[in-house]
Amino acid sequence: MSLDLGTDVVTLTESVVNIESVSRNEQELADVVEEALRALEHLEVTRIGHSIVARTDLGHDERVVIAGHLDTVPLNRNLPARNDGTLLHGLGSCDMKGGVAVALRLAHDLSAPNRDVTYVFYEAEEIDDAYNGLGIIAAQRPDLVEADFAILMEPSDAGVEAGCQGTLRVEVTARGERAHSARAWRGVNAIHGAGEILRRLGEYEPRRPVIDGLEYHEGLNAVLISGGVATNVLPDECVVTVNYRFAPDRSEADAQLFVREFFDGFEVEVTDSAPGALPGLGVPAAKAFAEAVGGVVNPKFGWTDVARFTGLGVPAVNYGPGDPMLAHKQEEHVPVEQLRSCETTLRRWLGADPDES
Amino acid sequence: MSLDLGTDVVTLTESVVNIESVSRNEQELADVVEEALRALEHLEVTRIGHSIVARTDLGHDERVVIAGHLDTVPLNRNLPARNDGTLLHGLGSCDMKGGVAVALRLAHDLSAPNRDVTYVFYEAEEIDDAYNGLGIIAAQRPDLVEADFAILMEPSDAGVEAGCQGTLRVEVTARGERAHSARAWRGVNAIHGAGEILRRLGEYEPRRPVIDGLEYHEGLNAVLISGGVATNVLPDECVVTVNYRFAPDRSEADAQLFVREFFDGFEVEVTDSAPGALPGLGVPAAKAFAEAVGGVVNPKFGWTDVARFTGLGVPAVNYGPGDPMLAHKQEEHVPVEQLRSCETTLRRWLGADPDES
Repeated sequence: MSLDLGTDVVTLTESVVNIESVSRNEQELADVVEEALRALEHLEVTRIGHSIVARTDLGHDERVVIAGHLDTVPLNRNLPARNDGTLLHGLGSCDMKGGVAVALRLAHDLSAPNRDVTYVFYEAEEIDDAYNGLGIIAAQRPDLVEADFAILMEPSDAGVEAGCQGTLRVEVTARGERAHSARAWRGVNAIHGAGEILRRLGEYEPRRPVIDGLEYHEGLNAVLISGGVATNVLPDECVVTVNYRFAPDRSEADAQLFVREFFDGFEVEVTDSAPGALPGLGVPAAKAFAEAVGGVVNPKFGWTDVARFTGLGVPAVNYGPGDPMLAHKQEEHVPVEQLRSCETTLRRWLGADPDES
Repeated sequence: MSLDLGTDVVTLTESVVNIESVSRNEQELADVVEEALRALEHLEVTRIGHSIVARTDLGHDERVVIAGHLDTVPLNRNLPARNDGTLLHGLGSCDMKGGVAVALRLAHDLSAPNRDVTYVFYEAEEIDDAYNGLGIIAAQRPDLVEADFAILMEPSDAGVEAGCQGTLRVEVTARGERAHSARAWRGVNAIHGAGEILRRLGEYEPRRPVIDGLEYHEGLNAVLISGGVATNVLPDECVVTVNYRFAPDRSEADAQLFVREFFDGFEVEVTDSAPGALPGLGVPAAKAFAEAVGGVVNPKFGWTDVARFTGLGVPAVNYGPGDPMLAHKQEEHVPVEQLRSCETTLRRWLGADPDES
């Protein structure tokens, strides 16, 4: 098995999709990506685990990272790939093997880009943070991901999505006192007590701050609720798991503070937290990239590894083929036209003749 | 293994407790009860499954049932029995082997009671209604449980508890529409929607009707709640299980109607229903019994097989040793003094010298 990076981007996407690479099973895909990149004399290739970094070293003042993850969510009767002429269907086609194929095409063709490029193809983005290949590279070889700007090829409908919202999860607990439900007045019903938690959530008004011209949209939602002991017992505990998606002008600490005040009077335990990322469109490289892509720049509502780049001091945007709403869905697909337009746009931005290949 | 019914009631209770008889494992206890009762010439004994019926047939105008179930809830490190001089501890001591021992003592000693007596020792009261021994006897041999009055020896702190409340369980469902929690405005949060269910429950005012001079006390309580798909998904369903305990002046149909109206606008599905039982203290036999016991007659808030007797046209009350609040608890126990006082009271009521034995 090997990958032909010289073929057209649609065929290459199909090949990449057909090499199954559910998280923790990226070895086969990483092997063929590594082999194909090592064959290119203009790139210096490093492998860490099942993540591959390939860099030009032309001495330019500016360096850009173009990154994509190799893994997918679990199989769901959606392999092999199927190209209906307009859409390429199949596991990972949207999230984000289309973007990976575009980056592989650039890595293959552009031996003399107008800025140095670091291509990063990494493992385990879809699972627990501890396995994240980009995080592991940044921890072991931070020099490999130093750059002035980063493009993360997450699906964004071939438009620039800047920044990303942070996410915080908390468990909010209402407590009571057990009693037999035939003598309810001897106890305190914790599920009834949780009504106040839901009342506050129902009245929540989301912040919609405008940052660098982009309007974000926060959200505070109960995502799980559980309570109860038995059907003849007054429950003494009810736990509501709440997910707060916060705009990137708010830090994780501020987000926690907000949620704790919001649920004042209840126990609040943080179970999960990740910072947002400011759009950073003030940075010249980002601004120039947005102009090169053209069209409207949108805010990213979901959380992506853009926030990891921001944490490393590298301004970053999401830009890739595919509808982000289709990510993780059984029926995910990518428009072949977006595969081509993303490749063309990036070629032009990197100083190559967009049609040369 | 055999039971000596001629011994004192505390020793007999201890023996009965020490014959483990968790629901569906009543055979050993039923065997020794049957054997002991068959040895008594003044009783006619019938066995159905692991339930034993023993009747005097003296031609009295009046017949009373004295009934107790042989089974217990599951073991919980609470065997063998332990008598600390004041309290007899152990699985089933309170619910309701103390009452069973009292009834066995009466069956043994009273060869010429002042009314005919039908003793019923039955299996499987603590589990699914389909197994209930009293229900099986009533279905197969209704003649065996015909009577003017019934005493169910459920723990009632050695006082008369009349009637019982009905119980209805429903699942109340709030529905919504899934969306990624990062773009909550694209969906409808079903858990937030369930806030209205909890709001109504929080404002519920229980009815407390007075029936035959007894004040009942209804209850409408969420006993379970569950909802949620994943911690990044807006939930599309939230189910609240509600238990309605209703006073015996309300039928099951009325109870359902009340709950459906109360949760108007939500899906309501009935999962479980059992009628209440009117106290029936207007019946001469019941009134005479309450007077014989003395003290205050209390309403029974929990559901018991008293309702089954009522359904069979037999007025019934709960009367037995032990605190009903201790039923089903690991630490259940029965005061030895209540074992003795229940035996004495029933002996007197049945026309025997209370101290003769």
